[in-house]
This record gives sequence, structure tokens and C-alpha cells, in this order.
Amino acid sequence: MANSKFEYVKEFETDDRLPPSNWIVVRIDGCHFHQFSVDHAFEKPNDENALNLMNACAVSMLEQFPDIVFAYGVSDEYSFVLKETSQFYQRRASKILSLTVSYFTAVYVMKWKEFFPHKDLKRPPFFDGRVVCYPRAKIIRDYLSWRQVDCHINNQYNTCFWMLVKSGKTEREAQEMLKGMLSKDKNELLFQQFGANYDKLPAMFRKGSCVYRDKVEETVKFDLTGNPVKRIRKKVVLGHFDIVGPNFWREHPEILEED
Amino acid sequence: MANSKFEYVKEFETDDRLPPSNWIVVRIDGCHFHQFSVDHAFEKPNDENALNLMNACAVSMLEQFPDIVFAYGVSDEYSFVLKETSQFYQRRASKILSLTVSYFTAVYVMKWKEFFPHKDLKRPPFFDGRVVCYPRAKIIRDYLSWRQVDCHINNQYNTCFWMLVKSGKTEREAQEMLKGMLSKDKNELLFQQFGANYDKLPAMFRKGSCVYRDKVEETVKFDLTGNPVKRIRKKVVLGHFDIVGPNFWREHPEILEED
Amino acid sequence: MANSKFEYVKEFETDDRLPPSNWIVVRIDGCHFHQFSVDHAFEKPNDENALNLMNACAVSMLEQFPDIVFAYGVSDEYSFVLKETSQFYQRRASKILSLTVSYFTAVYVMKWKEFFPHKDLKRPPFFDGRVVCYPRAKIIRDYLSWRQVDCHINNQYNTCFWMLVKSGKTEREAQEMLKGMLSKDKNELLFQQFGANYDKLPAMFRKGSCVYRDKVEETVKFDLTGNPVKRIRKKVVLGHFDIVGPNFWREHPEILEED
Amino acid sequence: MANSKFEYVKEFETDDRLPPSNWIVVRIDGCHFHQFSVDHAFEKPNDENALNLMNACAVSMLEQFPDIVFAYGVSDEYSFVLKETSQFYQRRASKILSLTVSYFTAVYVMKWKEFFPHKDLKRPPFFDGRVVCYPRAKIIRDYLSWRQVDCHINNQYNTCFWMLVKSGKTEREAQEMLKGMLSKDKNELLFQQFGANYDKLPAMFRKGSCVYRDKVEETVKFDLTGNPVKRIRKKVVLGHFDIVGPNFWREHPEILEED
Repeated sequence: MANSKFEYVKEFETDDRLPPSNWIVVRIDGCHFHQFSVDHAFEKPNDENALNLMNACAVSMLEQFPDIVFAYGVSDEYSFVLKETSQFYQRRASKILSLTVSYFTAVYVMKWKEFFPHKDLKRPPFFDGRVVCYPRAKIIRDYLSWRQVDCHINNQYNTCFWMLVKSGKTEREAQEMLKGMLSKDKNELLFQQFGANYDKLPAMFRKGSCVYRDKVEETVKFDLTGNPVKRIRKKVVLGHFDIVGPNFWREHPEILEED
Repeated sequence: MANSKFEYVKEFETDDRLPPSNWIVVRIDGCHFHQFSVDHAFEKPNDENALNLMNACAVSMLEQFPDIVFAYGVSDEYSFVLKETSQFYQRRASKILSLTVSYFTAVYVMKWKEFFPHKDLKRPPFFDGRVVCYPRAKIIRDYLSWRQVDCHINNQYNTCFWMLVKSGKTEREAQEMLKGMLSKDKNELLFQQFGANYDKLPAMFRKGSCVYRDKVEETVKFDLTGNPVKRIRKKVVLGHFDIVGPNFWREHPEILEED
Repeated sequence: MANSKFEYVKEFETDDRLPPSNWIVVRIDGCHFHQFSVDHAFEKPNDENALNLMNACAVSMLEQFPDIVFAYGVSDEYSFVLKETSQFYQRRASKILSLTVSYFTAVYVMKWKEFFPHKDLKRPPFFDGRVVCYPRAKIIRDYLSWRQVDCHINNQYNTCFWMLVKSGKTEREAQEMLKGMLSKDKNELLFQQFGANYDKLPAMFRKGSCVYRDKVEETVKFDLTGNPVKRIRKKVVLGHFDIVGPNFWREHPEILEED
Repeated sequence: MANSKFEYVKEFETDDRLPPSNWIVVRIDGCHFHQFSVDHAFEKPNDENALNLMNACAVSMLEQFPDIVFAYGVSDEYSFVLKETSQFYQRRASKILSLTVSYFTAVYVMKWKEFFPHKDLKRPPFFDGRVVCYPRAKIIRDYLSWRQVDCHINNQYNTCFWMLVKSGKTEREAQEMLKGMLSKDKNELLFQQFGANYDKLPAMFRKGSCVYRDKVEETVKFDLTGNPVKRIRKKVVLGHFDIVGPNFWREHPEILEED
């Protein structure tokens, strides 16, 4: 029994290969995560375990998909950068999008217990995603800056908001107080009212998280005289750096090197 | 601190809304599931638990996403049909693709223990997906026929193949024997050599699985005289029907009704 | 000298084939034709010669491109409908768009003298175009209705506007008078002030122009007894019909017949 | 009479804006120009008048469309490069494609008599076109190199072919002789058999044609003492340069300057 009579339906599938020589960003974002964070009693404004879980998933992503050269995450969102020369699934957008978002989701559920040993998953966590092409490394840096500046703006706001709420304000009052307040005045508020130095908050909250491959020196074994034999290898690492300024990129020029 | 300087990067995002008045199919497919089925010792040619897990995920999908009007699954693959008038996320392809594949994946991992209480997940199961538009209900029926005919061809082949292998042939020998063999001769082989009537195998193996909403009568309560008070409601149901022929569609005309 | 070193640039070309089984509309539209009509002193509100030239180009289009089954034109705009099964240039959007708009333009310039024997072309007439897919014949009919209703609205307005202007009003005054006026009141205005019965204006102005193929009986030759030998053949014809209502389509069911 | 009932058909139009920060190439190509060149008795292998007409059209294009920064033409083909920052019609692909190919066509027909005063146009010349995005200036240079190398390969072949044919070979024989012949052997053939030095042929045939804007010094008027008053302005110019090597681009760095 041949299937030729119905196979014409395959012709409706479109060729969705992304243009060559463009950097590819997959950004995934928790769907209904506000409710999800309530259901699972995430700490406000930042739940360290939830962020660590997101970061663990991102590390798994770089271990699974060699074409991802950099990832940046904040809150329930993560951006994955594929190098411009990537030939991953012939650059087919649907494949890239579905595989990455699916893998991330699977790891998130599988690792949940590791980060929340005392909480059961009450409903399926799921993510939406999108794929965007960027023609030059310079623009990828601007993309990442955009996300990190957003991280800062949101985190500063949320830190103030929740300190006010925890100190007795209603959510409405806290919102009113912060409306239109300048960045430096928010820092001042934290310091004056709560004795908190914003810059001393954990870097993960303020800067978000970067995942990439770095050279690490490892001791492989010891030779006959007892001296360590070392080798350099690339390892997926996690850090919380400023990626708006030039320093990080000067120290890791190979990440966004253009062909 | 405004973010305007970097916000121009948003302009690189494309408008990927699917054309109106087209039926939308999302087909998801297990990635590296051959290896996954080996790692988790799935039964061959069909692992009932693995299929039941897939079906349970599909049922969850229809419960979660009202725009899905029909789903058809076979092996590690599932097709979801969204009605032509769907406005789900304004028909944005990336949203539809990523959310559905992510939700399916999350449910798959969460329900694993229910279907495999004695097996641990050894690695993340993940799925690729694609979105395809079909302009008319008639073509959707051809699409579904294409998948079901494929199901039949593969299942018949695999049934013969594994019976031969389990009876002592090498995989190579089994492959050689089946090469070019006609459909009816395969049935004959099953009957003559193994006393198996192909048509008596479980419908789930032969026909795949259909998930849709059907009217069911429920007893809501009993009235004062002890008589049941019933109501009709739509419920997500699962079945294993022939969907190539006209009967199923005659009985459920509302599923593919065109606007 | 091989060209392989640079040939990689071809990979940046995208596959722009339109989805199968969709009706295709190419709509072309005069670019800067307001100025063009001033430069060439077109009569207002309708220049018969200019419309006849547009129509002659449309007839040439159907003679040149057999996949066009219907064309509808109004003012400096023309829509061409390609049948849903068309395989013209494998349905590549760029090919379809560029070839049709280019051919139309070439014929427009070449036939200019025929319709404007006493006017020189002062600057190149050119057209923009777009390609749109429609999944069902019913929607194509709505598309054509949309254009014809637009034709009516614009023509009625313009007829009133120019009668007022020609009768001595300034353009501003005419605009003010017509602002928000109902359709039937516009007809009344024409009748009361100018003794004009809108429905008696030329159908080409009120209804636009339709171009399609129709069966015509032709006398091929005369036989020995002097009787005419006739044959039926398909010929490109032009008419000014109502295409919103069902009559035209009932009389020409083959034009939008679906496969 | 409102048109709202049918206006939904506009939703089928797609957003076809090209991605920002990409160079845009529109390449147009004569359709059925082999037959067209036969019908109008173009000289072989190169008809100077036909090439001059193409070039005149390209010059008109740069005068009409300021976003075109460079054009390269050979035979019946022309490529137009729009700068990466162009906002021409919001970068909508259909607008860019249709307007340019339509304008080119109109000018081609209008200028025909100027270049072929003794030949009537026998049928409409028309062009297909495509739009391609390139993410970096370096790749645009490779694109242009690709076209110029193609020009060289074709022209050298055609020069040999037609010299052989004009000297009495059949077209088949000429074809056979040239099959697989190396570039330098073709030059040798021209020199040995026909005393022709390929490098002395007109640059327009060998190199194709470049159109761009250059600074030119103009005498605007003469002052009271009779001295010329000059000014520098940008003018569209035509030349036949090597654009594979770096020299032309070194001398005109502003053409492909990236933002």
C-alpha cells in the first residue's frame, strides 16, 4: 500500500531556513510564569532556587547544543546565541526553535526536584520562544545589552517594590511611590529607608546570568615524579558579568568572532 | 535609566502570523527517539506504555489549548489540528509552535512515572515540531490520511520485522526477507509463520490514536425522586479509528466544519 | 576560471514559493499617478482614454499569461487572479510579481500612443504591485467585491466632487460639502443640482472593468455551399459587470471553479 | 455604503519588510531575451546599442531612487544595491521589487527609439526580478564579484563562439570545440585564429557596467573677473571597472560604507 495519493500534503511545508551569515538568537520565556511563581511560592523579588534552576537548564543547553556560543538569562527568560556560521539543522527556524525550547523544558522538569526538594510541581512549566537573526556581532552585543539593561531596570524596580510591600505598604501604594522615580532615587530610597546598598545585592539578581565556554586548566593525572599533568579544555561556565561594557568581550573575543 | 538606545534590536523580530482562514497543523516528533527507546528498553515493535504516555500528553494538550480540535498520534509523533478561525496568539507561528511543543514536553516528563513506575528517565526526552497551514478541510483530511497510511505501512512492516527477529532471524535477514514484499504478503507471512491475524492486533498499533472533543452525557446529581439529572458536555476523548474513510467524519462533522 | 569562490552568495536567495492550492492575486497600482494624471491632463473624475489604456494592458496580460483567469480594474489599479492550481514559475512570488508588473508596464508605454495620439509621455509611468494568497474561491469573490465596492464609493464621491468644482466651488468647499454625506444623498445631490442620474453614467466608471476568457462563436470559413463553418473558442473579453452579486458568477462558474 | 463587510480580505496581505541593517540587492533579468534579441536582430555576441540602452535605464534608476548606491549590469541583467540603512517604503520587499522593475521597464521602452532609431519594438520587453538581503558589505562585494566573474566567463565564451561561427563553423561545431577549454586557451584561440587580443576588446563587454554617484566639479557661472565659479556635486556616473579587486573600492569607500 503506497502512500503516494496523500503525500502531496507535504508540499504545504515551507522552507524556513534562516539566512546565512547571520547570528541567531533563540529567546525563551516562561509562559504564565507569574501564576506559576505564585503557585510554587517563589520568593520575591528574586527566588534564588528558581534562578539556579533556570541557569542549570542553560548550562545543559550549551552542553547539548555545541552551536550555542553564549546564553544570557534573567528572571524566567533566557536568550541563546548561535554562531553566525551555524549549520544546525540547516538553520531551519522551526527545528532550531522547537528543539531548543523542548530540551530546555524537559531539563527544567527533570531538575526541578534538585532545586526544590520540598516542593512538588503543581502544573507543567512551559515556555514560548522566538528566533531572531542579527546580521553583525556588534548588533548581537546591542541585543545582549538590551536584555541586561532590562534586567537592571526591572530588578531595581522590583527590589524597591517588594521592600516597600514587605515594610507594610500596599501594592498600590508601592506602585504609586515608584511611578516615574529616577534610577538614582530608587537607589537612594533603598539606602535611606532600608539601609540596603543596591550594589551589594547578589550579582545574579543585578546582572543576570551568562553561560559560555571557557578554557579551564585541569589536572588529568600525576606523572611518575608526582607532578600534576594538566591540560586545557573548554568547559561550559556560568557567571554574572557586566556585558554592556567592553571588558567582558575584550577578555573573551572568541565568543562573538565573525567569520 | 532608559533602554531606548538598544531597543532598536527589537526591529529584527519578524511578523510570523500565519495566513487567516487556513487550518493549522502542529506536528511534533520525538528527537533521537530511536536511541531514547533503546535507553529505556521500550518493547518492540510497539511499547504500550510509551504510546499511552504519548496519548495522555495529547489529551492534556486538548484540555489546555481549546483551539486544538483534533489530534492524531502514532509512534513518537503527534499532529495537532487548530481550527481555521483560530486566533491563538494572533496565529503567530513561533508562539504556536514553541508553546505547544514545550507544553507537550513538560507533560511528558511529568507523567513519565505514571506510565513507567519502575523506570527512571535517563535523559531528557525532547521533540521537534513544525507548523503547516492547509487552506481547506478536505486537505486536512488528506493530511490525516497521509499520517494514518504511514502508520499502517510502518506498523505492518515493524510487526513482521520483529516477529522474524524474535523467531531467530538476524535483523539483516529480516530486512532482506521483507524488502519489496507486498502488503497482503506481509499479512500472509504473519498468519502462516506466526499464526498471527494482523487485523486482530490492538487498534492502537494499527490505527494510531485520535484525540478530540465529543459530547458525553453525565449524571450531574439526582433529583428529589431519585432520578438522575443529566447534562451533555464536551469532553476530550481518545479512540483508535479509521480516519481515511468517510465514516468517522460523517459521525463528527463539527470537527472540521469550515466557517 | 571557475566562479565557485563567490557562488556562495546565491545561498542568500530565499525560497519564496507561494503555498499550493491557494488562489493568487497580483494587484498593481499606479505609482505617483495623481501627479502623472495632472502632468498628462487626464480628465476628471474619469479619463476614458486612460481607462481604456489600462483595460487594453489587462487584455494583453490575459493573452500573455494563461494562468490569469480573471482581472478587475478600476482607476490606475488592476487585480489579476491566478487559479489556485497555477504552477506558473513554480508559484515563486518574486517571479510572478516582477514579470506581471513589468509586462503590464511595457504594454502601457507601448500602447500609449494608441490611446493618446496627441500627447507625449512626459515621464515613465510605473506601478507597484503585491501578491496575496487566498485559500478559497469564496474569499476571492469577497476580494473582488471589496475592490468593486471601493470603486463605487470612490467614483460616486469623485463624480460629486468634480461636478461641484466644475460648477464653481473651490476644492475645499466641495470637500466640506461631501464630508460624511450618505450614499443616497450623493445621488440626490447629483440629480437635484446637476440633473445627473448616477445610474446612467457609463458602467466602466461605476462598475470598473472585468477581463476574462469567454466562449465565443467564430466563423472560420465558408463551406462549398456558402454556409459559414463556425467554431467555439475561448477569447479574452472585457466587460463592466456587477461582480458583488451572484449573477455574473452563476453565468461563469468555470472562472473560479475549485479543484 | 461602507466597505467593512469585505475589508477582512486585507488581512491576507503579509508583512514583507526586509530585515534591518542588511544590504538589499534587486537583480532584474530580461525575460525571454534570447528570443527578444533575435526578433530585434541584436548583434552577437554583444550589441552595443542594447547595452547602452540597459545602461541608460540604470542611470535613470539611480536618478529616480536615491537609495540605490550602486548598480552593476551585464547583458540583459542589472543588479541594484540599496544601502543597508535604506528605509525605502519601509523596506517592503514587494514595493521595492515591483517599483524598481516597473520603472526600469518603462524607461527601457521609452528610450528604445533613442538607441534603436531604425528599429520598431516588436513585442513588449519585460524583466523578472528578485530581492536578496546581504548582512555585510564584504558579502556585497562578493556578490558583485560573482556577477563580474560570470560576465567574464560568458563574454569570453561568447566571443570565441561567435568568432568561430562567423568564420564558418556550425554552432554545434563551435560548441564542441569550446567544451572544457581553459580560459587561457580561449584567449590563445582568439589570438591565433583571429588575431584578436581579448584584453583589447571594449571594457563594457569584458567588465560589464558600473553605475554610481561620484563627486564631479562643475562650473556654475563666471564671476565678474571672468573666473569660473565651481562647485562639487554628486552625479550619477557610468564606468566599466574591475570590481573584483580592491582598487575601485579603495577609491570609492563611501559607496559600501557600513553604518
